[in-house]
Amino acid sequence: MANSDLKQWERIILGIDPGTNVMGYGLIGVIGKKPSMIAMGVIQLNRFESHYLRLSRIFERVTGLVEQYLPDEMAIEAPFFGKNVQSMLKLGRAQGVAMAAALSRDVPITEYEPRKIKMAITGNGASSKEQVQEMLRRILDIPRENLLPQLDATDALGAALCHFYETSRPQIEKGCRSWKEFIAKNPGRLKTNS
Amino acid sequence: MANSDLKQWERIILGIDPGTNVMGYGLIGVIGKKPSMIAMGVIQLNRFESHYLRLSRIFERVTGLVEQYLPDEMAIEAPFFGKNVQSMLKLGRAQGVAMAAALSRDVPITEYEPRKIKMAITGNGASSKEQVQEMLRRILDIPRENLLPQLDATDALGAALCHFYETSRPQIEKGCRSWKEFIAKNPGRLKTNS
Repeated sequence: MANSDLKQWERIILGIDPGTNVMGYGLIGVIGKKPSMIAMGVIQLNRFESHYLRLSRIFERVTGLVEQYLPDEMAIEAPFFGKNVQSMLKLGRAQGVAMAAALSRDVPITEYEPRKIKMAITGNGASSKEQVQEMLRRILDIPRENLLPQLDATDALGAALCHFYETSRPQIEKGCRSWKEFIAKNPGRLKTNS
Repeated sequence: MANSDLKQWERIILGIDPGTNVMGYGLIGVIGKKPSMIAMGVIQLNRFESHYLRLSRIFERVTGLVEQYLPDEMAIEAPFFGKNVQSMLKLGRAQGVAMAAALSRDVPITEYEPRKIKMAITGNGASSKEQVQEMLRRILDIPRENLLPQLDATDALGAALCHFYETSRPQIEKGCRSWKEFIAKNPGRLKTNS
């Protein structure tokens, strides 16, 4: 995609699902309140035997995505619990390298637990990856033939869409317990017919 | 230190002890078989509340060290076991960000367990950090007044020196069980007086 085409979007969110075997990415563009998919894909890492080559590849590719699509924000799928300390250390490294690529280009990062992403997309924190993919396909009007067999790509797209929902909600979610309280605190935001 | 002064070294090794509160670094320059300290220091991270600011700072500072000292290799102190998955994930991220800084400049990385570093420096894998510091002070002729109160700096220097020892050893350590076997496998490396 040529960079000139990116100007149509008011906001671009890069979603990343970093893993040590496969890394998924998905880009969402927003016009008004409507999110659309710009791109998605996976970076195969398991063909590299060396852990460092994998990390290096993640850094290169995330840097490449940031340079190509100039995202305003990055959303990352980040599990906070794992099987064991060994796998969490490896996952932390993969996350750290992906984060470094965004941080080095001053792209702010927000992380979301897998459960939170599923909840935001399907309304159920225990949905399967397939259910998340199907819901994303409908929300973002993705042709079936454009879906990838690897669900890591739609997981990453889910992180980006979750971030869009989280940051587009009215302020009621952020510190006010009711609409009444929100209106009292934000009188200027109330449209009246007078 | 001006870059022209760096030309005296045949080889420069950057040692990193990445943590989420304090990151230590130490640089060793080698002439012939003699290692010397070029610089050491710590990067205080606990004054940043945000996890991302800490990671960003690690990336910036390690990138800065790589650009300033142009190391040939990086050695990293990397514990493989930790208290819990949460702390290992955070440590993994700190390591990943430091590694990304080296990988993005094509500096090869080797990691060493703390026990291995202690063994290489003091001959005892269970040494205290103070014992490691004292031994480094003697080996590298560091004036007492140049030592930092934070032991993370000498830990990082220890990683660099451990890497120097590991990579300067004769091949006997790498796959041969005896000198006899080594000599049999490497006839060209045997000096004879004939």
